[in-house]
Amino acid sequence: MPRFLDVHTVPPGTPPEAVAAAHQRDLAVQARHGVRYLKYWYDAATGKIFCLSEGPSREAALAVHREAHGLMPDDIFEVEESE
Amino acid sequence: MPRFLDVHTVPPGTPPEAVAAAHQRDLAVQARHGVRYLKYWYDAATGKIFCLSEGPSREAALAVHREAHGLMPDDIFEVEESE
Repeated sequence: MPRFLDVHTVPPGTPPEAVAAAHQRDLAVQARHGVRYLKYWYDAATGKIFCLSEGPSREAALAVHREAHGLMPDDIFEVEESE
Repeated sequence: MPRFLDVHTVPPGTPPEAVAAAHQRDLAVQARHGVRYLKYWYDAATGKIFCLSEGPSREAALAVHREAHGLMPDDIFEVEESE
């Protein structure tokens, strides 16, 4: 299953709790789109959020965000994960 | 220990093997800087690389890349990781 990393920008200083609440909404609706949001990374100083997901397509990953809260990423990348 | 996500741009279509080779050089020198590069994600179509590391500072994370291969990121973010 492909993995995707999407990048959002929120106002710098947005509380982590607000980001977590939006993420919880992603988790609540993701199954309807065949997607699993795996992790996210947030930098409150710059307002950058990076969300890692696994799913059938980038459109499916975006559909989760659209249905969950409407906060759409600036970019989404289909990525290979390595260590 | 803080975590950092840095973002590189290489020419689209750069082979994953070339990215992996650069990453191996990071792993070879990271201990000298007290850093652990944990994972990376690569999108060959756009040439974007996202590297996740753990270390004492963003300067230390950047010093690893500088010593390893000199391929410096466009941006580096101090991030909180959540699920």
